[in-house]
Amino acid sequence: MTKLREMRPDQLDGLEQATQSTLDSLCAEKLSLDLSRGKPGPEQLDLSAAMDAPLDSYLAADGTDTRNYGALRGIPEARALGGELLGVAAQQVFAFGASSLFLMHLVAATALRRGLWGDGRRWRNAERVRLLTPVPGYDRHFTICESLGLDMVNIAMLDSGPDMAQATALAAEDSTVKGIWCVPKYANPSGCIYTDETVAAMAKLPQQAAADDFVVFWDNAYAAHDFEFPRAPLANLYELALAAGSEEHLAMFASTSKMTYASAGLGFCAGSDTLLTALEQSLSVMCIGPDKVSQLRHARFLSGRIEVHMAQHAALLRPKFALVENVLQEELGALGIASWTQPKGGYFVSLTTPPGTARHIVQLAADAGLILTPAGAAFPYGKDPNDDHIRIAPSFAPLPELEAAMQVLAQCVKLAAIKQLRAIDEP
Amino acid sequence: MTKLREMRPDQLDGLEQATQSTLDSLCAEKLSLDLSRGKPGPEQLDLSAAMDAPLDSYLAADGTDTRNYGALRGIPEARALGGELLGVAAQQVFAFGASSLFLMHLVAATALRRGLWGDGRRWRNAERVRLLTPVPGYDRHFTICESLGLDMVNIAMLDSGPDMAQATALAAEDSTVKGIWCVPKYANPSGCIYTDETVAAMAKLPQQAAADDFVVFWDNAYAAHDFEFPRAPLANLYELALAAGSEEHLAMFASTSKMTYASAGLGFCAGSDTLLTALEQSLSVMCIGPDKVSQLRHARFLSGRIEVHMAQHAALLRPKFALVENVLQEELGALGIASWTQPKGGYFVSLTTPPGTARHIVQLAADAGLILTPAGAAFPYGKDPNDDHIRIAPSFAPLPELEAAMQVLAQCVKLAAIKQLRAIDEP
Repeated sequence: MTKLREMRPDQLDGLEQATQSTLDSLCAEKLSLDLSRGKPGPEQLDLSAAMDAPLDSYLAADGTDTRNYGALRGIPEARALGGELLGVAAQQVFAFGASSLFLMHLVAATALRRGLWGDGRRWRNAERVRLLTPVPGYDRHFTICESLGLDMVNIAMLDSGPDMAQATALAAEDSTVKGIWCVPKYANPSGCIYTDETVAAMAKLPQQAAADDFVVFWDNAYAAHDFEFPRAPLANLYELALAAGSEEHLAMFASTSKMTYASAGLGFCAGSDTLLTALEQSLSVMCIGPDKVSQLRHARFLSGRIEVHMAQHAALLRPKFALVENVLQEELGALGIASWTQPKGGYFVSLTTPPGTARHIVQLAADAGLILTPAGAAFPYGKDPNDDHIRIAPSFAPLPELEAAMQVLAQCVKLAAIKQLRAIDEP
Repeated sequence: MTKLREMRPDQLDGLEQATQSTLDSLCAEKLSLDLSRGKPGPEQLDLSAAMDAPLDSYLAADGTDTRNYGALRGIPEARALGGELLGVAAQQVFAFGASSLFLMHLVAATALRRGLWGDGRRWRNAERVRLLTPVPGYDRHFTICESLGLDMVNIAMLDSGPDMAQATALAAEDSTVKGIWCVPKYANPSGCIYTDETVAAMAKLPQQAAADDFVVFWDNAYAAHDFEFPRAPLANLYELALAAGSEEHLAMFASTSKMTYASAGLGFCAGSDTLLTALEQSLSVMCIGPDKVSQLRHARFLSGRIEVHMAQHAALLRPKFALVENVLQEELGALGIASWTQPKGGYFVSLTTPPGTARHIVQLAADAGLILTPAGAAFPYGKDPNDDHIRIAPSFAPLPELEAAMQVLAQCVKLAAIKQLRAIDEP
């Protein structure tokens, strides 16, 4: 096949007709497809059925009756599980609830209102608070910022992680820059893993920041979500931060939502004793303790077998990501109109389309019965400056539906690109 | 026995020596007793073991896979369960998380910051926000107020519930009065049930308030926690509020923490569509959905058998409350130095001691190895104006320990009363 922009008009006409025809026949099947959210498939959820076997005892390792009130930081074995995911000791971990997003919001809200350091430092003392947002990124991070009135400053995501030169320069020159959002492994949505150099620079960032209340939000949501084993390594941010003296400026997050049940996993937040004390004070106002029965079930189910369990997930996810790759390659590979990531783990593929077409493609897909993540969702305020980014979430759909959905998407990309090319050529 | 203040000096000496001797022999047993918190006993927690039997399906009534993301307001059968507890339809119920306290904090924080009515009304627009706190009351309600910077105005708790004449007068005269805290059935800690007149007045309170953003916090924590059956009735606040046109000013709460597991129950918040929409907006920033697996377990376990299940709790709790009554009656009944409540449900007994002695009694008890709820805890800022209130929480301790604890407490009351009497007589 020829590249799109090198095609003769008759070739372009032929491609457009063939593409439209393919799309029409897909549409004739009255599709109801959804690639919008990173939800585990039902067969992934089935992998944790053994977690729900009756417990022979409700007592935690320290004798706590998990059914009763208390233990706000979590039971020891759940904290250890979080520590295993985040590369820290159990006592640095808060195991609370089913949602790491809740803990992220709690850290940001506490930094804003009560302070994280047991002293007078509070973000609300500043006229303006800005957080660095590597883009494309995770829309729910941006929503937390918007809801708390925290402004966002986009920085570039490279294959190595956030552009740390840019991050460091921005943080160093302006004390209103008070934090950065990170998804360090299989980043949502680009799929990259932060390099050792990036993690080392991140550990030093709080010390180089002009603000003395800088926070690195380290959302390690895909810590164990590799497709291949042994798992890809990630440098240990906490150890590097200890060496740099910046450990009180880290808040590290993990979750089992995509390991056990999306609705009923465990959320973890790890950091310094100072951080944990501040979180405990914030949480104690609104909660008496976490669901420790769920913590006990998780610990008994996952302890010592995280990799075995995640390999079962990988076996289900690999064919889906391979299918995405194959369709994109076959349908778009030769045309020179799109590029995409080939992540080795996580939940997303980033598709880059011709500038100015992403919104149009998402609309074309919706018209054909395929729901995609809204164009721009991976950018603060939903504004993709190039309008060229589409996030693909292939995990939930069964393979035949995923195949149909990817075919729809590929045809929509082609049609939008052809239309754009014509608009340029025939002004 | 003679009343304490009618005793001759030699009688008082004799009582003091006997009391001290009893206390000393109790102390010799190196007690470690705790009547401080309303925790279910282990045998109560055992009553819900069947809830943890393997589920034959994870699908909710509407087909939702409870293991996956979503359904922020909860699955239909969990919402129905909350509706049954609160006397409202399922669609008026938010079923979220394991903690009704979290939902109370959420309502208060949302009223303060984003508003509950989808318009410009926000408590933070006022220079000062005050909530009515019937006292004695529940310390965690007061902590929510303190943490959000909401001032508290004490009003009297009568046997019929809060003094509604006082509440109405205060709310009507001052627009900074923006809400009231209620525990309408087996109130914590007095144990009273709000009368029909009180509930009717409560339904009208928002309309009579000077503030247009008044909220009734209706914490029906002990809705089904009767000791005798059929359950004691409570007037339906929501229906009365609909008739009064005040339904958008209610936030009603219930929980299964003291029905199934204290750590892993379900929390409910019920109210108007307007309230539910506001809560959903607040929650969606920090959470993707509730633990719907737990919701499914609860609904299957409790639906249609709430009363049967709570009768089993009652059978375990009645002997404990009877023991408290017996010891207080036998040890203090004739002395004229104390009064106490005899609740027909709930988790607490309120003990009223001679004015100015409660703090001393709690200290004497601590010295003897018995932990009580701190004196003053049932009052905002921990300040009991009469220093005469002690909350007894008899649910957790096994009967022999409860007997010893109540004996310690009774001796401490006597010693403190004698000491006080002497201080008055011999200035």
